[in-house]
Amino acid sequence: MINIGIIGAGRIGKVHLESITYHVKNARVKSVAEPYLNDETKEFIESMGVTEIYADYKQILADPEIDAVLICSSTDTHASISMEAIDAGKHIFCEKPIDQSIEKIEEVKKALEGTNLKYQVGFNRRFDHNFAAVRAAVNAGKIGDPHIIKITSRDPAPPNPAYIKVSGGIFMDMAIHDFDMACFLAGSDVEEVYVAATVLVDPAIGAQGDFDTAIITLKMANGALCVIDNSRRAAYGYDQRAEVFGNKGSVASANDTLSTAIISDENGVTGEKPLYFFLERYMQSYTTEMFDFVDAIVKDKDVPCGIDAGLQSVKIALAAKKSAVENRPVKMSEI
Amino acid sequence: MINIGIIGAGRIGKVHLESITYHVKNARVKSVAEPYLNDETKEFIESMGVTEIYADYKQILADPEIDAVLICSSTDTHASISMEAIDAGKHIFCEKPIDQSIEKIEEVKKALEGTNLKYQVGFNRRFDHNFAAVRAAVNAGKIGDPHIIKITSRDPAPPNPAYIKVSGGIFMDMAIHDFDMACFLAGSDVEEVYVAATVLVDPAIGAQGDFDTAIITLKMANGALCVIDNSRRAAYGYDQRAEVFGNKGSVASANDTLSTAIISDENGVTGEKPLYFFLERYMQSYTTEMFDFVDAIVKDKDVPCGIDAGLQSVKIALAAKKSAVENRPVKMSEI
Amino acid sequence: MINIGIIGAGRIGKVHLESITYHVKNARVKSVAEPYLNDETKEFIESMGVTEIYADYKQILADPEIDAVLICSSTDTHASISMEAIDAGKHIFCEKPIDQSIEKIEEVKKALEGTNLKYQVGFNRRFDHNFAAVRAAVNAGKIGDPHIIKITSRDPAPPNPAYIKVSGGIFMDMAIHDFDMACFLAGSDVEEVYVAATVLVDPAIGAQGDFDTAIITLKMANGALCVIDNSRRAAYGYDQRAEVFGNKGSVASANDTLSTAIISDENGVTGEKPLYFFLERYMQSYTTEMFDFVDAIVKDKDVPCGIDAGLQSVKIALAAKKSAVENRPVKMSEI
Amino acid sequence: MINIGIIGAGRIGKVHLESITYHVKNARVKSVAEPYLNDETKEFIESMGVTEIYADYKQILADPEIDAVLICSSTDTHASISMEAIDAGKHIFCEKPIDQSIEKIEEVKKALEGTNLKYQVGFNRRFDHNFAAVRAAVNAGKIGDPHIIKITSRDPAPPNPAYIKVSGGIFMDMAIHDFDMACFLAGSDVEEVYVAATVLVDPAIGAQGDFDTAIITLKMANGALCVIDNSRRAAYGYDQRAEVFGNKGSVASANDTLSTAIISDENGVTGEKPLYFFLERYMQSYTTEMFDFVDAIVKDKDVPCGIDAGLQSVKIALAAKKSAVENRPVKMSEI
Repeated sequence: MINIGIIGAGRIGKVHLESITYHVKNARVKSVAEPYLNDETKEFIESMGVTEIYADYKQILADPEIDAVLICSSTDTHASISMEAIDAGKHIFCEKPIDQSIEKIEEVKKALEGTNLKYQVGFNRRFDHNFAAVRAAVNAGKIGDPHIIKITSRDPAPPNPAYIKVSGGIFMDMAIHDFDMACFLAGSDVEEVYVAATVLVDPAIGAQGDFDTAIITLKMANGALCVIDNSRRAAYGYDQRAEVFGNKGSVASANDTLSTAIISDENGVTGEKPLYFFLERYMQSYTTEMFDFVDAIVKDKDVPCGIDAGLQSVKIALAAKKSAVENRPVKMSEI
Repeated sequence: MINIGIIGAGRIGKVHLESITYHVKNARVKSVAEPYLNDETKEFIESMGVTEIYADYKQILADPEIDAVLICSSTDTHASISMEAIDAGKHIFCEKPIDQSIEKIEEVKKALEGTNLKYQVGFNRRFDHNFAAVRAAVNAGKIGDPHIIKITSRDPAPPNPAYIKVSGGIFMDMAIHDFDMACFLAGSDVEEVYVAATVLVDPAIGAQGDFDTAIITLKMANGALCVIDNSRRAAYGYDQRAEVFGNKGSVASANDTLSTAIISDENGVTGEKPLYFFLERYMQSYTTEMFDFVDAIVKDKDVPCGIDAGLQSVKIALAAKKSAVENRPVKMSEI
Repeated sequence: MINIGIIGAGRIGKVHLESITYHVKNARVKSVAEPYLNDETKEFIESMGVTEIYADYKQILADPEIDAVLICSSTDTHASISMEAIDAGKHIFCEKPIDQSIEKIEEVKKALEGTNLKYQVGFNRRFDHNFAAVRAAVNAGKIGDPHIIKITSRDPAPPNPAYIKVSGGIFMDMAIHDFDMACFLAGSDVEEVYVAATVLVDPAIGAQGDFDTAIITLKMANGALCVIDNSRRAAYGYDQRAEVFGNKGSVASANDTLSTAIISDENGVTGEKPLYFFLERYMQSYTTEMFDFVDAIVKDKDVPCGIDAGLQSVKIALAAKKSAVENRPVKMSEI
Repeated sequence: MINIGIIGAGRIGKVHLESITYHVKNARVKSVAEPYLNDETKEFIESMGVTEIYADYKQILADPEIDAVLICSSTDTHASISMEAIDAGKHIFCEKPIDQSIEKIEEVKKALEGTNLKYQVGFNRRFDHNFAAVRAAVNAGKIGDPHIIKITSRDPAPPNPAYIKVSGGIFMDMAIHDFDMACFLAGSDVEEVYVAATVLVDPAIGAQGDFDTAIITLKMANGALCVIDNSRRAAYGYDQRAEVFGNKGSVASANDTLSTAIISDENGVTGEKPLYFFLERYMQSYTTEMFDFVDAIVKDKDVPCGIDAGLQSVKIALAAKKSAVENRPVKMSEI
């Protein structure tokens, strides 16, 4: 039985708390740290059977019974808390991105060297049933060698403009998931990035020096080409699809819906919209990633998505931003 | 080069005229007979290069250069014209149903005996790309032995009430195509028929002693069960689907649409309605049946859909009507 | 907080135990009764936090803290335990069928009269996201008045022949879910039943006087027609679909799959098979029905699927069997 | 009645001959010119009722009864024959590309000025039922302002290596259709092109300095972004899809198949592959473009796809090649 402490009880911290409580049998959440605790959150944490609720995450790190921590605090704290947690000898699950600075991530990476600590990064989409099935088909050789990877990733609504600055912009905040997905599906790192980006959804986004619409081309190290299309606003909801095309064929995933019901009437033949946003669409993936994190600790296996994946995706995000601003292909070696 | 005379220049006669002219290379339409010729029809016939236009079909039968006739006149004339055409030594393509009376069809069948004349019945749906693909899968053994056959057959709009009486009602006029399809897909005759029929679309149909909505169960001679659902009015257009389920799997066809375009918006994910009615949906099948009819003559092969199919389907229609009226399963041996 | 006792810790009893523990916040399972307890089951029950495990269900009924019981024992005990539970003043959730005898169900119904006890029957498919969406579309008037209801219900594999006798046969054991679904989707009771049934899957089933393949036609009290097709063995897995066709259009549901991944290669364009069987397909529905049962108790509302639904479905099953054996339509008033 | 002369009786010349003969009522093919006539082609032309067959196309241009010519000869002759045909006062339908040299196309454009001659370019895909439906939805405002256009265009098999050199390479020969489609769907010209191209299908293609796999990003003049993915070999056949995503939603087309039949068995749920190649997939579009060309002449309307479209697409192809070779975004103003 693994004892887990959750640092940060925002939206995603709560998701992990519920997943572990209900679905990860050989782990339990022993404590939660949240500096800005409101009543509703407190009640929710208690309803999950957790009684140790702290304002300061250091109390979790100081608890010798804690085996692992989930870092779900704001992005700017991920790296420093990671360092402290490594010092304290805790296994770590860290939400993405680890940091917007490569140096800080490399510092964490260095700190991990020589330890036997697990460090998993929260690229939950790898664990989504659809993307996992696409990857499984590729791994099983069903489409041969990957030639073209296509990822469609469109949010149903842009974030609050205030959040955009903090978040690091569309590449660091949103497309970073797609960068990791590209590497995951291709089974390869990226060599070069070209981005055509623009502002078509909301001028307020452009006013902050960010983009809301982008076509991103990645040249993968294994020779495959990848293209990602991003929009901050799809009128029909969260659009999350991928295709891998290879010399033997192609595998593609579609969106999930609440039901398979289809209505035929004088207006046409109409099915449901995609599930609205990430909490609806990816709930299963959050549970699976938690299960796999705990499993890696219990069985002393490699985590399915480690610090190198976290580092690579941030590098691609930085290259993407550079490419969009300078309007030229940017080699990863430049970053 | 086969010379063909078309008897009856209504909607379906014109379809055959155009198909042969454009797509059946080893046949030509030499003459057309139509007692009620209007200017538009005359112009259309001439635009197809046909100059011999008669009021009386007997002129076609009397022409020694004519090899084959298409009987596209009203149903009540099919049997007697068939008899005359056999006498005149012409191959015959006859629209369905041959007649509403089994005796008359059997008379035609008898008259054909000993001749080398081809007699094809116009069950065009057998030649439709979708239903033909379903049948081909069954024939190829892909679903094993058929256990359940399901046919959905719904018209977009009921016929003129005046036509209903003449047509012989829903079973003789509409479901007869489905009866033939059941035999075609199952590769078997029918042994017993049960019909649950009602009037839900238009009371005027009920007022004429007919039905507009029906569930028809057929016990096939080969042991399979078949179910047909009929409605005279589907708000979304012509619904024409089939499924054959067997011990190794299932094969099912869907409706055809004008395009594959699908719109995703705040209302859902919407594709096009099915093609509106038989002229839109089945145009290809009319051409293919004509091609196969001419091919059977040229190569002296069996026609793909002969008088026995024509007889069987009428018998099933009569059994269906009897079952609906008497509310009991009716054995084919009763007819 | 509702205290629940589960009577019978077989497959479905365990499903309910897990659902309540994880997903029904205002209820807890206080005790479980199982006469044939093995180690694995005991361990599972304890892992859900339940310590009161009895051999005799009477201990649950005798516990004044218990508010409600789930009757998940063998079918032949449902009615008598229901009677005892009513005597003990417990709310009841009873698996289907309540009994194979109408008299016994009516006895239970009578016993409920005048009490304020909830009695829900386990027709879980009503709570399935797909069937619920079909029903919601009908209720919202999207397809107008229902004319034709079509239900496809095929199991991936027949039950153990030994079970067939006990189960009451295909109509009482398997199609009973479809009978309830027909009433649910049509919003109407049944007036008449006709069944064409045969043995095509396994002669051993026929040897016990049962059928494995059936087409069932229901005339609904509201005038609609319904057809159900059943097979005990679909090579591609559990086939669970429904369509309601009305004067304004049609709503249809498809099967669920593990993922949306589709592979295009030289063999065609291939998606996944349906989820294998009821535990895979209907897990969500079991949770929702439990949630609604507890909600009905807590808020003193009508249960969503009460004893009348349980009674009606058994009556239809008996009529279906009679129809199959006597090969004639059977009126519900005969039962 | 328009008299047409066809210059070049290769594959596409024959397609147009058949289309006009069978489906374009107010036009007829009076003569065909083909320097390398074989018996089979001769027989085919005669079967279409054409008796004037020449070796030299100049005989067609010299015929005062000819109203229009179709230039279906090899690409390197398109521009010079266009010039001669304009001199001869004939309307012109010219296969794509008009020429690989912009100067030559501009010469043709200049020659057309002041005449009343129609000049249509053979971008047949605009007339395809699926792409036309996508465009119609955009035009009808159903998806709002276009933000992202996505085009998938993959051939089933690469051309003969010998042809690659002559053809001008993947951008001039294959992607040129997609460039025109991008402009058509976006309703806009292109401003900048970036191409990531590689050789993954066949090294022989690379040996000729060409590519077989490409991701092409277009910045459109109206602000939209467009991405095209090309491969010379899709194992499952011809993959021809498009999507236009805008602020109100998205419209996407799928591939056409020979039938809608779907087989469910122990291997999965399998539909047919896309129609094999352009003759199978685009036959309807060839007929429609011919119909519209004749209609533009008869009614003196603008052709649906004129010389500016022909010019723009060649410019984009040149920019694409430059971008691929220099690995940088290329502005259209550079070409």
